[in-house]
Amino acid sequence: MAIIVGERINSTRKKIGEAVRKRNSDHIKNEAINQAKAGATYIDVNAGTNPDREFEDLLWLIDTVQSVVDVPLSIDSANPGVVEQVLPKVKQTPLINSISGETNRIEGMLELVAGNGGPVVALCMDDAGLPEDVDGRLKAARSIRKILNGRGVTDDLIVFDPLLRPVSTNPDQVPVFLEACRQIKKEMPDVHLICGMSNISFGLPKRNIINKAFMTLALQAGMDSFVLDPTEEGIMANYYATRAVLGCDEYCMDYIMKARDGSL
Amino acid sequence: MAIIVGERINSTRKKIGEAVRKRNSDHIKNEAINQAKAGATYIDVNAGTNPDREFEDLLWLIDTVQSVVDVPLSIDSANPGVVEQVLPKVKQTPLINSISGETNRIEGMLELVAGNGGPVVALCMDDAGLPEDVDGRLKAARSIRKILNGRGVTDDLIVFDPLLRPVSTNPDQVPVFLEACRQIKKEMPDVHLICGMSNISFGLPKRNIINKAFMTLALQAGMDSFVLDPTEEGIMANYYATRAVLGCDEYCMDYIMKARDGSL
Repeated sequence: MAIIVGERINSTRKKIGEAVRKRNSDHIKNEAINQAKAGATYIDVNAGTNPDREFEDLLWLIDTVQSVVDVPLSIDSANPGVVEQVLPKVKQTPLINSISGETNRIEGMLELVAGNGGPVVALCMDDAGLPEDVDGRLKAARSIRKILNGRGVTDDLIVFDPLLRPVSTNPDQVPVFLEACRQIKKEMPDVHLICGMSNISFGLPKRNIINKAFMTLALQAGMDSFVLDPTEEGIMANYYATRAVLGCDEYCMDYIMKARDGSL
Repeated sequence: MAIIVGERINSTRKKIGEAVRKRNSDHIKNEAINQAKAGATYIDVNAGTNPDREFEDLLWLIDTVQSVVDVPLSIDSANPGVVEQVLPKVKQTPLINSISGETNRIEGMLELVAGNGGPVVALCMDDAGLPEDVDGRLKAARSIRKILNGRGVTDDLIVFDPLLRPVSTNPDQVPVFLEACRQIKKEMPDVHLICGMSNISFGLPKRNIINKAFMTLALQAGMDSFVLDPTEEGIMANYYATRAVLGCDEYCMDYIMKARDGSL
């Protein structure tokens, strides 16, 4: 199970925020359809910019997206109350995005995650804050896993996010991040690894070139899932190409099929 | 010292072979200029398709390229007699491309390589043939290094090529190839590593996408040099982006400069 979360429908993006305010459903529908076509296996919906209206806005997004695509949703909210209210309206088992090891963030969501039966993104941080090193990420992952397993959430439904920062301001962090990926997968081979891929290129020109190079390295380090914009030029093609190069795609058959059907 | 050998001026390429036969110097000059502009640090010249005429053809290529660019040449011939004859005509210390550990191939070239004072590409193979595994490559590298060092060729002038094969027909070879790179660099930190990058994508569609993903993985494994077509879309941009992502480009300054001057 590789999870590609299409990230575009997020109200912090100017055009999406506007579409949410004006209830411009055509705009949202197009975003959903385009991301599904481009290869998203989950469509993220986030209406967090206006906390007072988050429930109504998120519900509208959910209804709008579900009216046009069959791809399951990624329910992107830090508010357990909102998640609880919208879940009954979600047609297919969604991904919950996200929890962390911070006491207040895991406690409120735990019941919902356990009842959901779908994957959950868990940020590799706890009450100690954002980890700087490999060990901090591993420690947070271990404690979150223990709690989730204790509530019946099996490893294959846990999607750890080792928290990627921009390389422009953290020049040494990529080797640390990739090593954290390797160690988490070594210790917990059945969990999944995800990241908000474009974080890597924040503040840099031609972000797409940086994003693709990073994605390739992350795939090699065991990352199997991404939160990304699947409509970004060449990004899904790079995903299939890297799998082929790494020998994860026997005789490059997936890659060749994608080339044939015009998706590269 | 990162070596980017621009591979386009090779008579096995149809248009180049034609230009050589017809002495179409404008075509060759343009190829040289375009590759230099795109970032080649050496311009390869190969006239091996017609062994009877190799000396005259190669000499003409050398004169033609040298008339328009200041980038040093990569003298690409398996014939020591031809290399010996053309070397006096080469203005800047060239790269010699290539020797191997095969007795007949190293013996004839050794004197020339030792006298040249520039870098030499050494294929990681010996009389045992094309190595399948990491050890075979390492063993060949060790024995070639010993011979070269013995003739005064220092490690920083040795550019090992661990011999890359197409992933389409060798699905498991990339991890082996990358591991060979890591082990060679660990044991001999001052040597350089190079490969004919586009070999990876032979037989596949949209080769450029595969080439870039492979290049990123190779750079991480310690490869610092490439034989490639620097005019290939996005290839040099991917080189600078990967260096930035890997933290080899402090605060991404090279990358940002390349973006500013329009070279990405």
